[in-house]
This record gives sequence, structure tokens and C-alpha cells, in this order.
Amino acid sequence: MSTPPRIPVAVLGATGLVGQRILLRLARHPWFRVAEVAASERSVGRRLSEQVPAEVGEALGHEVAGLRLQPMDAGFLSPLVLSALPSGPARQVEPRLVEAGHRVVSNASAFRADPAIPLVIPEVNPDHLALVGHGDGGIVTNPNCAVAPMALALAPLHRVFGVEGVVATTFQAVSGAGRGGPSVLDLSDNLFPLIQGEEEKVEREAQKLLGTVEGGAVTSAPFPVSATTTRVPVLHGHLVDLSVALKGRPPLAEVADTLASFAPGPALPTLPPSPLHLTDDPMRPQPRLDRDRGGGMTVTVGRLRPCAVHDVRFMVLAHNLERGAAGAAVANAELCAAQGRIPGVEPIREGAA
Amino acid sequence: MSTPPRIPVAVLGATGLVGQRILLRLARHPWFRVAEVAASERSVGRRLSEQVPAEVGEALGHEVAGLRLQPMDAGFLSPLVLSALPSGPARQVEPRLVEAGHRVVSNASAFRADPAIPLVIPEVNPDHLALVGHGDGGIVTNPNCAVAPMALALAPLHRVFGVEGVVATTFQAVSGAGRGGPSVLDLSDNLFPLIQGEEEKVEREAQKLLGTVEGGAVTSAPFPVSATTTRVPVLHGHLVDLSVALKGRPPLAEVADTLASFAPGPALPTLPPSPLHLTDDPMRPQPRLDRDRGGGMTVTVGRLRPCAVHDVRFMVLAHNLERGAAGAAVANAELCAAQGRIPGVEPIREGAA
Amino acid sequence: MSTPPRIPVAVLGATGLVGQRILLRLARHPWFRVAEVAASERSVGRRLSEQVPAEVGEALGHEVAGLRLQPMDAGFLSPLVLSALPSGPARQVEPRLVEAGHRVVSNASAFRADPAIPLVIPEVNPDHLALVGHGDGGIVTNPNCAVAPMALALAPLHRVFGVEGVVATTFQAVSGAGRGGPSVLDLSDNLFPLIQGEEEKVEREAQKLLGTVEGGAVTSAPFPVSATTTRVPVLHGHLVDLSVALKGRPPLAEVADTLASFAPGPALPTLPPSPLHLTDDPMRPQPRLDRDRGGGMTVTVGRLRPCAVHDVRFMVLAHNLERGAAGAAVANAELCAAQGRIPGVEPIREGAA
Amino acid sequence: MSTPPRIPVAVLGATGLVGQRILLRLARHPWFRVAEVAASERSVGRRLSEQVPAEVGEALGHEVAGLRLQPMDAGFLSPLVLSALPSGPARQVEPRLVEAGHRVVSNASAFRADPAIPLVIPEVNPDHLALVGHGDGGIVTNPNCAVAPMALALAPLHRVFGVEGVVATTFQAVSGAGRGGPSVLDLSDNLFPLIQGEEEKVEREAQKLLGTVEGGAVTSAPFPVSATTTRVPVLHGHLVDLSVALKGRPPLAEVADTLASFAPGPALPTLPPSPLHLTDDPMRPQPRLDRDRGGGMTVTVGRLRPCAVHDVRFMVLAHNLERGAAGAAVANAELCAAQGRIPGVEPIREGAA
Repeated sequence: MSTPPRIPVAVLGATGLVGQRILLRLARHPWFRVAEVAASERSVGRRLSEQVPAEVGEALGHEVAGLRLQPMDAGFLSPLVLSALPSGPARQVEPRLVEAGHRVVSNASAFRADPAIPLVIPEVNPDHLALVGHGDGGIVTNPNCAVAPMALALAPLHRVFGVEGVVATTFQAVSGAGRGGPSVLDLSDNLFPLIQGEEEKVEREAQKLLGTVEGGAVTSAPFPVSATTTRVPVLHGHLVDLSVALKGRPPLAEVADTLASFAPGPALPTLPPSPLHLTDDPMRPQPRLDRDRGGGMTVTVGRLRPCAVHDVRFMVLAHNLERGAAGAAVANAELCAAQGRIPGVEPIREGAA
Repeated sequence: MSTPPRIPVAVLGATGLVGQRILLRLARHPWFRVAEVAASERSVGRRLSEQVPAEVGEALGHEVAGLRLQPMDAGFLSPLVLSALPSGPARQVEPRLVEAGHRVVSNASAFRADPAIPLVIPEVNPDHLALVGHGDGGIVTNPNCAVAPMALALAPLHRVFGVEGVVATTFQAVSGAGRGGPSVLDLSDNLFPLIQGEEEKVEREAQKLLGTVEGGAVTSAPFPVSATTTRVPVLHGHLVDLSVALKGRPPLAEVADTLASFAPGPALPTLPPSPLHLTDDPMRPQPRLDRDRGGGMTVTVGRLRPCAVHDVRFMVLAHNLERGAAGAAVANAELCAAQGRIPGVEPIREGAA
Repeated sequence: MSTPPRIPVAVLGATGLVGQRILLRLARHPWFRVAEVAASERSVGRRLSEQVPAEVGEALGHEVAGLRLQPMDAGFLSPLVLSALPSGPARQVEPRLVEAGHRVVSNASAFRADPAIPLVIPEVNPDHLALVGHGDGGIVTNPNCAVAPMALALAPLHRVFGVEGVVATTFQAVSGAGRGGPSVLDLSDNLFPLIQGEEEKVEREAQKLLGTVEGGAVTSAPFPVSATTTRVPVLHGHLVDLSVALKGRPPLAEVADTLASFAPGPALPTLPPSPLHLTDDPMRPQPRLDRDRGGGMTVTVGRLRPCAVHDVRFMVLAHNLERGAAGAAVANAELCAAQGRIPGVEPIREGAA
Repeated sequence: MSTPPRIPVAVLGATGLVGQRILLRLARHPWFRVAEVAASERSVGRRLSEQVPAEVGEALGHEVAGLRLQPMDAGFLSPLVLSALPSGPARQVEPRLVEAGHRVVSNASAFRADPAIPLVIPEVNPDHLALVGHGDGGIVTNPNCAVAPMALALAPLHRVFGVEGVVATTFQAVSGAGRGGPSVLDLSDNLFPLIQGEEEKVEREAQKLLGTVEGGAVTSAPFPVSATTTRVPVLHGHLVDLSVALKGRPPLAEVADTLASFAPGPALPTLPPSPLHLTDDPMRPQPRLDRDRGGGMTVTVGRLRPCAVHDVRFMVLAHNLERGAAGAAVANAELCAAQGRIPGVEPIREGAA
């Protein structure tokens, strides 16, 4: 029985931190192959290998590393486009790709808040993908890098008990700011009490992920989220401290069971065996020690305990560039492929990995 | 008119991080002079200058730096003892000093929770000092280093509106762990999600500070506090993120006015002109930039905004070794002196500084 | 054709940073298996899994992780002992193991300077192993963690040209100090200008490695080495800046060729394909980017250029816990096995891996 | 007896890290006052207070903080111009200021190598100032931030013994790269093996400082310097490790005496009582502990010992933004004022501070 040919993919923003990790994930992917790469104007025409660190080039292999960077507005041949663009360029480029009939899987925040555009984590709300069709263009987004681990832990709690309110404080790593992140001069022996523009995202994306699709749009779950987002001198790994009010004040043991038994999502190559890893070591999660669990896709949940003000308090941690960005986008692309939502491509049968 | 002679003070735990800062504050103090120093067994008999960094020895001056370290259980001659002991030794040593008739001003946590022993910040609850007498021994404590800035900001809010609940997340600096703090190998590119034994203190000390004295004991204020305490790779300066429920849901502007107009405390040499510095720069407070304001005694309050879950959200920051320890203890000693609560010593008239 | 049974090994100092890495290297080793583990008194009797981080325990597998820690002076059954002891205990323990007939491969500095005891890097001086016999006990040592990369680069230069003098400045990572390394409070925003006791080792070990065996003892190469050893806030990876005087003032291109063509050592499972990786990127080597090359066993050589005072100047970098400790010891054990110098064990044929 | 009016000064590049520190030094200067400030185009027309951190603005006082930023090519009224420009703009701007008759004291590297333009450290070569006149324009430069401490220690050794060669390795702090310095993502848990363009400066500036003025130009001292310049994750404070060959192989004690007795320079307000502080604590100098000695102007010299290859080995450290930049420039301006080399201004008598 022959293997079907791998689906050609165009990667936009290929030379950034997230773009590189998407490429690395695709380099040995069972379903996809990198066919086209695009970057900002100053890189156009150069080979990918010249614009990424030597180690990344080697890991990509000759064929991919030798691809020449195209402009963002090129007419791509691949039916599937993975976009690691910043929000500004994404707002310009992605709608045109939709018009041209591409399935666009985007890590950008540009269209995440639009109720008609799905915001998806495969283990949380794969049904939201129904907002895009099978044969026509459309955007699929993944959440903000701090929201991803938070929503994964809130999902089973919301299903089983109902979430009534969340107070969140994030400890975010510098790689979340991309290559032009905070300088040593500013952030050494220090931390920043705010990441500009981040709190709005953290305060609304989880509700959309846990919302319901009706009449071609998402109705967000109604609970309030209050967020403080900070930047700490850590390379990778976003940690979020949560205080959560639950309906019916369930006992702590039930909350723990609910988190521990959160079902794995659909069988996709990028998803870890279990989305949540619950630890009872009170000194975990720690960013450096826990960020790479499950290839950066497993969310470590720790410090679960009663909260004197709400019901429960706990922390979540995941790799911001994987579960929070590159891995999230690739997983969403896989979900599209599995559901037959890549224009012109047959659905991939489960277990094809 | 002649200056009265300065009050002799014994400093316990003189060689630790907090002890050194107490000594530095006393070295040029208008009311006090360091007469005796004590440390743990292995230092006894050595001169102070041999047991502290060269810079500290120079700043202390020949007379103080030349003092020989006594054992903890020495019979001290000074009526006033400042204790920078860890909790374990404090629990043994301090009661004996009380029996011997000393006024003990302690930074230790050993007796802070005892309702009969005052826990004091001069600007917050100077009246609690009535729990100790004028001519006899007794312990006066200052709060945990993360609680100090928190309580100073909650104090005016509780007086004016009434605090109903607090969700706190701390970002604590390594100097809070003393000399034997976290190693680079453990904490670099990382943070710890818990400081063992710290959350209990943060969850109960603010309520005692904002409580009332009745019948020889403090009745703590009844609001719940939920705390997560973390260690971050910062040298000095504890930052606390707060979500606060207030009675009557006051408008944000009234909350801001209340914080901004928090009255200075009694006129004591160590207190800054104003206990709170309110900033509307959204990128402040930052530990490295704000920790030394007011000699480490001014609390910087920032990021004040409405909270989607409770009423207001804001951050506080102060130097953990000053407002959170050494400066706090010296200020309490000054308050004792001003109220005539140092056995055998006349009250110091206001303005004597 | 059947695989011969793996050689049982006892690991001493199994719970330290180096000991753990030795265990991890042996856990899937083609020639060796961990049969016995020993540690300091306070761990004796406990299972290895209780005394190492959870991740390490999992990686070791149930059988090894379940071993109980024996005392250092146990009568070990394994013919081969790998010692990751500190110098003090090593000085006591290792001679007794020799008397009991064990081949002791030691990472300790205790006996490195003894001319009758071989100090070996397989690619540099495998012939020095002749100082120990085939069937009787004896110690084999590997060099100091900063010397290892330095000696590997000096070796081909000394063979081809002759080294006349070396001025070295090291930048050493904190893991070199083991678990009880520098605190954040001391080393953050800082560096230490000296590692106590280190310069003596760096100033004499390279010459022994490049020396000759005559009459049962090593005669060190005669060139002088001047070393400054510093500690920098880096987790892993020792970098050494070198200014080297060579006989005959060879042109830079010849020096580069000599380094680039340094022959791989004997075919041992732990050795990388090539011991030196020469880079012409002027911004390399960097500790975080280059320390893991070749499983931490490849030395990255960079910044090669003429020196205004001596002949050439360049930098070397390797992982201090691998090429500088655990990997070095395991490679030496492999060399012993290949040369038939493990008492009672047949030589392992080349290619057995 | 009346105080003479303070000399008006124009500060160029006023908003950068070095410019701000020049302003802070001038804000309470006994001889100078800030009369004009200039910056790059995007700041022109704004008040200084808007372009510097709030703390700096407060420290400067209302008058200076309220000055409006002028363009670089403004016609300045002040006879003295302090330039904190980067090398590129300095090359354009400074010659025009000379033509317009200004005394330009420049921190830029643009003209440092020109034998006709003095490169000066007041304690080292105040006589080189004779290269500029008294009543006409001309540039006076201060050395590279790593060279400054190095040259101050080499100066007495060269005078007394004669330096024959220097092998230098620098450990340079991030503030040396200005505001746009290395990111946490690049430099955390890491170091850079090169600072581009820096080694050339370190390899030639000390010789010019220790050279002699003949026929309107400096003849550099003839000894070779070999330099490796690295960037380490330290905020402030450049440390340099030196191996030095001296004529006549003097005993170490004589070298120590020579360093310890290095005479203070001319009596200028910015100079510390003694330029060198010699320590015999083997763990010093350390950047964080020693950089602020003497207001950042005192060079800490430590780890003095024999060198196995050359004669002596030692380390020097000073604050790169003070002894290496702002303080150096202000001291040179004072030297000009003391020698009557500010056009149209009477020499300031010694002791006028």
C-alpha cells in the first residue's frame, strides 16, 4: 500500500523565531512538506540557509534550506499556508490568500477576535473548525502563547464544572517577543510589569476557545478573565498563575481528577499523548525544567490547591514557541488535514502518521 | 541646648544580609548607636570587621566595625535589642531577652502570628504598639518582606472603603533568601513557583496589620487573602501583583486618590516623606529601577486599573531588605523610642532627628 | 553471532552532577551496564531514584533507578569502577579500590598530577594507558574540565609544530562547581575573577597530556602555561581564550589546516566523529550555542587569528560536564575496554559498538 | 572673593547612555554648566526631560531638564563642546565644530587614532594636551572603555620598567554597547567571543597614551598588544585580564609597589584621590562590587601574580560608562580648563573646586 504524497505547504515569516520552528516541525513531517517560503522584503531572493542560524539550516536538510525566499504577496502554489507573520503584515496578507483559495493557518493575532474566524486548540474545540469549509479558502488561528496553556487547563474544568471567573498573572519568557526582544541592559536583574497589548488577548481568547459555534460564529463563554502579563528574564516557557472560581464549589480532589483525566485530543502527529501533565511536586512547574515536556506541547499543571478567595489555584506552563506558536499552528494544520479542510486535498485517515 | 546621648542598641544576627543593613542604618543614626553585636556560634569572639564585606566594615566606621561578636545568649547591657535572627533561633532567644527586660524589635517571623505581640508598620498601625508597655520587656515585630508593601497599599483602601478579598502573586528577589539563596545553576533562565513557608505569612499578616487592638490582643481584619509566592532571578526588590475586592465598588479615580493621598506616618528618621509613590507609567514599577526609592522605604504603586473579576488591580514594589526587613525594624525601634517604650529611656521628642 | 554480555560497572558519586551524567551515558551503553552505585553516607541505603531528579530517574530506566546506594567503601563486584568523587574522598577511596584489583576510571583531580598514573584523552594520548596493566588494579584519570578542550586543540599543534608557551584565560560555567555552585546573589550581573585551586591544574595538566611515557612514568611536555580561571554566569560550557607560541612561527593557514585535520581518535562509542570543529564565524564559539555539539564531546575552535605577541590566538569551547567530566571518563573506560585493560574482561573488538 | 561664572558647555548626543552621565556629572559641577544640548534628528525640538528617564530628568534639575534639544549642526554658543556621539556622526560633526573655534572633548573613536589629535587620560599623559592650542578650536579624545583601566595600570609600569608586550582578554559589560545592546535572548546563559571593531582599538590605544609628543604628533610606545574582547552578561564594569612582559624582569614586589604608589593626577574635580586601588583579595575585582569605586573613576587592580609565560599577570576593572566614557570626557574637559585651553576662557586656578 503506497503512502500518499505529502501536502505542499507555504510558510510565511519563515525566518523569524516561530517560522523557523514551524519549518523544523515540517522538515520530517509525515503529512506535509515545505514547498515555498516567504519573508519580509529585505530577505526576498535569498536562500533560507542564509537567513537562519547554521544549526537550523543543517536540521532542515538541503532541499528546504536551499529554497529561495519569496515575497509575501507571491502567488503561492501550495493549498496550505502556515503564517508566522506579525499582526500588522498578517492583516494585509492573509485575507488576500483566503481570496486566492488557500487554507491559511495563522499564528498571528490579527483575526483571532473575529467571531466568524475559528480560534482553535485541537484538544479543546476541534468542532470550531466547522467555521471554515472544505474546498474554499479561510483562516484558522491558534491562541496567544500565554492563553494556550491556560485554556488547555480551563477546558476540562469548564466542561465538568463551569468556570465563573479567572484571575491570571503571567510570567512570560523573552522569546515571546521574537528576535528583537528585551535587552540585557533593561531586563537583567529586573522584570517588566507589563507586556504591551498582551492583557487584552489573555482576557478574551480563553472564552472564545471555550465558547460555542452557532450560526456561523463563535459565542464566547461568558466568564470574566482579569490578566496581568509580565516579562521575566527566562529564555523560553510561559508560566501562568491562576485563581479560578468554579460553579458549585467542587472539592479539590474532583478538580484534580478532572485535570488528570483530560482526554487526549484527536490523533495528530504533533499532539502529545496527553495534553496536561499534573505534578504534585510543589516546586514545579519551572520554566527551564518543564518547558520541553512533550516536545514543548505538554502543559505542566502544578501547585493545585484551594484558593482563599476563589475555589482553586494552580499554575500552568508550556513552551511559548511550541504549544504557544509553532507547534500550535502545525497541530491546527494537521487538524485541517484530518478533517479534509485543505482545498483540493483528500482527508488524511486517522493513523496515517 | 544639648543633644541627649544616643540610645545603646544590641544587634542580633549582625553578620547576615539584614543584620548588616540594620548596622548601616544605625551607623549614622541620630537617636541610636550600636553598642553590642551578636551572631551565631562560629563567629563569636571575632571582630565584626572580619565577618562582613570590606565595604560594609568601612561604612560602619572603626568603632562599630571593631566590636567583637558576642553569643546570642549574652547578657546585653543595651535596653533596646534589634533582632535579625532566623525564625528558629529567634524563637529560643527573644523570649529570654524579654524576661531580662529588653525591648526587642524583631524581624523574625517567630512571634508575628501571636495576637498578643504587636506586628507593626509605623504608617499603618502605630497604635498596636500599646500591646507592649513602657518600662518592661516585650517584642515588637515587623511584617514579612512581601507583606510590607502590600499592607502599606491596602491600609488606606481598607480605611476608606473596606477590603473584601485579595488575590496576590509575588515576584520575590533572591536576597530575600539571605546569603544561602538560590544558585545560578537552579535559578538562571528559570523561576521557582513557590517559596516554601511564605504563602502562609502573606495570607495572614496583612489582616493583622489592619486589625484592631482589643483587650490586649489584635483582632485581625476579616478579609481573605490568597497568595502565590514565587522566586525570580532579581537581586533585590519584591513586586506583588494584587487583585482587590473593595466594599461598595468605588470608582477607580477614588481608589487612585485614596492611594495618592495616604498620609505620611509619624515623623521618624527612617520613614520617607510619603510611604506610597503612585506612578501612571504602565511599565513601572520595575525592581531594578524602583527598589531604591526613598532609601528602599518608599512603596512604588503602579498599573492601577479596573479588574474584570474584582474591583481594582495594581502592583506594589519595595526593597525587601529595607521596607521588608532592616528599614522596617529600625523604623519600629524609632517608633518605640518616640512613644517612650524603651525601658529606662525618656521618650524622644518629635523633631529630635 | 551473539553479543557478549555487557561489562558490569560500579559508579561512585552517582548522585552528583557528573555522576548522573555518567549514569545517563551508561544507561544505553553498548559495552557497559550499571551494576552498582555508591554515594556519600547520607544517601546510603536509598534508591537512586530518590536521590536524583525525576527526569534523570525516568531516563535511567527502572532497573538502574531502582539500585540502592552503597557506601563508598563497599566491596564492589564490578571489575570497572567509574569515580565521580570530589578530590578529598577520591584520595581516600580510590587507592583501596586499586588494591582490591579494580580498574578505576576517575574524574577526580586527586591523582592526576602523579607521573605514574595516566592522565588520558583518547584522541590525544591513548598510549599513556600503558602505565596501567591488563589484569591488575590501577587508576586512569581524565583532565580538568577547562584543560580538556584546550589540550585537544594544542595536541595537533604540539605534534606538528611544537608548543612553546600558552597564555590562557578561561570563562567557566557554574555547573563546573557542582550542585553547591555560586548563588544568584553573588554571580548575577557579575563574574568571579578566580576559581580557587583551578589555575594550578590548568597550568600543568596539558603538558602531562602532551608528554611522553618513559620508564613507567610520564614526562610532561616542557612548555609553560599561564592561566587565569574565571567563573561567568553561564550554566554549562567552558570557553578558553588562548594565545600560543609555536616553534618556527608557522603561517596561520598551516595552523588552521593542522587543527582542521586533527585525526579522530580510536573508534569508541562515546567519541564524536571528529574531536575538533573549526569555525570561521567570528561570533563563535558561544557557550549556549556550541556546548552540545557532538553530545558535548566536540570541541568548537574559533576566532583563529595571528597574535600580536605570540603566534596564534584562538578560543576553544566544550561542555564541561561531558568532554570535561562524564563523557571524558566514559571514553577512558571504553579505551580501557578496547585495550583489554579491565581485569578479567576480554578486550572488546573494534566496531563492537 | 567672588566665584567666577561657570563655563557654558554644549553636550552632543545628550540622550544616550554616555550623554546622560555627562549631563549628570555637569549638573552640579563647580566649573561648568550645561548651556546647550543636541541630539539626533528625531529628538530635535523636544525638551531633554522628555527624552531621558524620569529619574535622570529629576536629578538634572528644572533648568537643564527643560533645555530643548538642538540639531547636531546648530551654531553653538558655548566655547566647550562635550561629544558623546557615535563614531559615524562624530566624524561628520566634530571637524566643523573645530573650524567654528570650539574646544571639542570627544568620547568618540573617530579621531582617536590620528597622531595629531591628543588621546588623553589626565593621570597618564596630561602633556599630550599641548597638541591643541589655547585660543583656537581642536579635538581632545579619551580612550576606549576597555583601554582606560588598562592604560592606567600600564602607565606606571611603563614609566618605571618599560612594557615589552601585553596579552589582554576583556570581559565587557552590556552598557558598553549603548541602549541597543545585546538581547536577553542572545546573551542570557551565554557570552559573545568578540565585540566587533573593538580589538583594533584595544591593540593600539594604550601605546598612544603612553607615547611621546614630538613635532606636533604623538609617537606611540612600541610594545605590541594582543587583545581578545568579549561581551559578558554584566550590566556595567569592564574587566581586563592582562599578561605583561616588562623590561629587566623586575621582582613582583617592585611591580606591586609601583602600582600602589602611582601618583594621583592633577587636582581636578572628577578625578578620584588615587587612580588605582590595589587589592590582594584573590576574589576581586568583581564587576558588581568594584565598578562604582571612586564614582566609577577608580581602577581596581587585583590578582597580581607572576606569569609563567611573561612577567606579571593581573586584572583591572573600572566603570565603562565613567572611567571609560562620561567621567573620562568630563575629566579631560577639566584638564583643558585647568590648562587654559578653552577658547576665550581664563585658566581655572588649581583648587578652584
